[in-house]
Amino acid sequence: MKSKLPLSVMEKLLKKAGAKRVSETAKTELSSHLEAKARAVSAKAIEFSTHAGRKTIKKEDINLVLEN
Amino acid sequence: MKSKLPLSVMEKLLKKAGAKRVSETAKTELSSHLEAKARAVSAKAIEFSTHAGRKTIKKEDINLVLEN
Repeated sequence: MKSKLPLSVMEKLLKKAGAKRVSETAKTELSSHLEAKARAVSAKAIEFSTHAGRKTIKKEDINLVLEN
Repeated sequence: MKSKLPLSVMEKLLKKAGAKRVSETAKTELSSHLEAKARAVSAKAIEFSTHAGRKTIKKEDINLVLEN
Protein backbone atom coordinates (compact mmCIF):
# COMPACT_ATOMS: atom_id res chain seq x y z
CA MET A 1 0.00 0.00 0.00
CA LYS A 2 1.19 3.46 -0.84
CA SER A 3 2.32 5.41 2.21
CA LYS A 4 0.51 8.66 2.99
CA LEU A 5 3.49 10.42 4.53
CA PRO A 6 5.05 12.65 1.85
CA LEU A 7 8.42 11.53 0.51
CA SER A 8 9.42 15.19 0.18
CA VAL A 9 9.11 15.50 3.95
CA MET A 10 11.19 12.33 4.44
CA GLU A 11 13.92 13.87 2.28
CA LYS A 12 13.83 17.13 4.24
CA LEU A 13 14.11 15.31 7.57
CA LEU A 14 17.00 13.13 6.35
CA LYS A 15 18.84 16.13 4.91
CA LYS A 16 18.25 18.17 8.06
CA ALA A 17 19.80 15.29 10.01
CA GLY A 18 22.89 15.72 7.82
CA ALA A 19 22.40 13.43 4.83
CA LYS A 20 24.21 14.56 1.68
CA ARG A 21 22.13 12.46 -0.70
CA VAL A 22 19.08 10.28 -0.20
CA SER A 23 17.85 7.45 -2.43
CA GLU A 24 14.17 7.19 -3.35
CA THR A 25 13.86 3.78 -1.70
CA ALA A 26 15.29 5.16 1.55
CA LYS A 27 12.52 7.78 1.62
CA THR A 28 9.89 5.13 0.89
CA GLU A 29 11.26 2.89 3.61
CA LEU A 30 11.29 5.65 6.22
CA SER A 31 7.78 6.72 5.25
CA SER A 32 6.43 3.15 5.49
CA HIS A 33 8.05 2.63 8.84
CA LEU A 34 6.65 5.84 10.30
CA GLU A 35 3.20 5.03 8.98
CA ALA A 36 3.30 1.59 10.57
CA LYS A 37 4.35 3.25 13.82
CA ALA A 38 1.47 5.73 13.50
CA ARG A 39 -1.02 2.90 12.97
CA ALA A 40 0.22 1.07 16.04
CA VAL A 41 0.08 4.20 18.20
CA SER A 42 -3.39 5.05 16.83
CA ALA A 43 -4.82 1.64 17.64
CA LYS A 44 -3.62 1.82 21.24
CA ALA A 45 -4.74 5.45 21.64
CA ILE A 46 -8.25 4.45 20.56
CA GLU A 47 -8.25 1.69 23.15
CA PHE A 48 -7.20 4.17 25.85
CA SER A 49 -9.84 6.73 24.85
CA THR A 50 -12.54 4.03 24.97
CA HIS A 51 -11.26 3.02 28.38
CA ALA A 52 -11.69 6.65 29.51
CA GLY A 53 -15.27 6.66 28.20
CA ARG A 54 -14.53 8.99 25.30
CA LYS A 55 -15.06 8.79 21.56
CA THR A 56 -12.61 11.61 20.88
CA ILE A 57 -8.91 10.79 20.75
CA LYS A 58 -7.06 13.37 22.83
CA LYS A 59 -3.44 14.31 23.31
CA GLU A 60 -3.36 12.41 26.61
CA ASP A 61 -4.30 9.16 24.85
CA ILE A 62 -1.35 9.55 22.49
CA ASN A 63 0.96 10.40 25.38
CA LEU A 64 -0.23 7.44 27.43
CA VAL A 65 0.67 5.16 24.51
CA LEU A 66 4.13 6.68 24.20
CA GLU A 67 4.78 6.37 27.94
CA ASN A 68 3.79 2.70 27.97
CA MET B 1 9.10 23.84 16.38
CA LYS B 2 6.30 23.21 13.94
CA SER B 3 6.15 19.60 12.78
CA LYS B 4 6.49 18.94 9.06
CA LEU B 5 4.24 15.89 8.99
CA PRO B 6 0.76 17.04 7.83
CA LEU B 7 -1.94 17.00 10.52
CA SER B 8 -4.45 15.99 7.83
CA VAL B 9 -2.48 12.77 7.34
CA MET B 10 -2.44 12.19 11.12
CA GLU B 11 -6.22 12.51 11.17
CA LYS B 12 -6.60 10.07 8.26
CA LEU B 13 -4.38 7.49 9.95
CA LEU B 14 -6.20 7.81 13.28
CA LYS B 15 -9.61 7.54 11.60
CA LYS B 16 -8.48 4.59 9.51
CA ALA B 17 -7.44 2.90 12.76
CA GLY B 18 -11.05 3.35 13.93
CA ALA B 19 -11.14 6.71 15.72
CA LYS B 20 -14.56 8.40 15.66
CA ARG B 21 -13.26 11.86 16.50
CA VAL B 22 -9.77 13.28 16.86
CA SER B 23 -8.72 16.42 18.74
CA GLU B 24 -6.30 18.89 17.16
CA THR B 25 -3.77 18.39 19.95
CA ALA B 26 -3.84 14.60 19.43
CA LYS B 27 -2.86 15.13 15.78
CA THR B 28 -0.08 17.54 16.78
CA GLU B 29 1.21 15.11 19.38
CA LEU B 30 1.28 12.18 16.97
CA SER B 31 2.97 14.29 14.32
CA SER B 32 5.66 15.51 16.74
CA HIS B 33 6.32 12.01 17.97
CA LEU B 34 6.70 10.60 14.45
CA GLU B 35 8.98 13.44 13.48
CA ALA B 36 11.20 12.82 16.50
CA LYS B 37 11.30 9.15 15.54
CA ALA B 38 12.23 10.10 11.96
CA ARG B 39 15.07 12.31 13.19
CA ALA B 40 16.46 9.54 15.36
CA VAL B 41 16.27 6.98 12.53
CA SER B 42 17.83 9.49 10.10
CA ALA B 43 20.80 10.21 12.35
CA LYS B 44 21.60 6.52 12.74
CA ALA B 45 21.06 5.79 9.04
CA ILE B 46 23.60 8.50 8.16
CA GLU B 47 26.08 6.90 10.53
CA PHE B 48 25.56 3.51 8.87
CA SER B 49 25.93 4.92 5.35
CA THR B 50 29.19 6.63 6.34
CA HIS B 51 30.36 3.35 7.83
CA ALA B 52 29.66 1.69 4.45
CA GLY B 53 31.72 4.38 2.67
CA ARG B 54 28.71 6.04 1.05
CA LYS B 55 27.33 9.56 1.01
CA THR B 56 23.92 8.42 -0.20
CA ILE B 57 21.44 7.11 2.34
CA LYS B 58 19.95 3.89 0.99
CA LYS B 59 17.05 1.69 1.95
CA GLU B 60 19.44 -0.76 3.61
CA ASP B 61 20.70 1.94 5.99
CA ILE B 62 17.15 2.62 7.14
CA ASN B 63 16.47 -1.11 7.51
CA LEU B 64 19.66 -1.66 9.47
CA VAL B 65 18.54 1.02 11.94
CA LEU B 66 15.13 -0.59 12.33
CA GLU B 67 16.63 -4.03 12.88
CA ASN B 68 19.01 -2.77 15.57
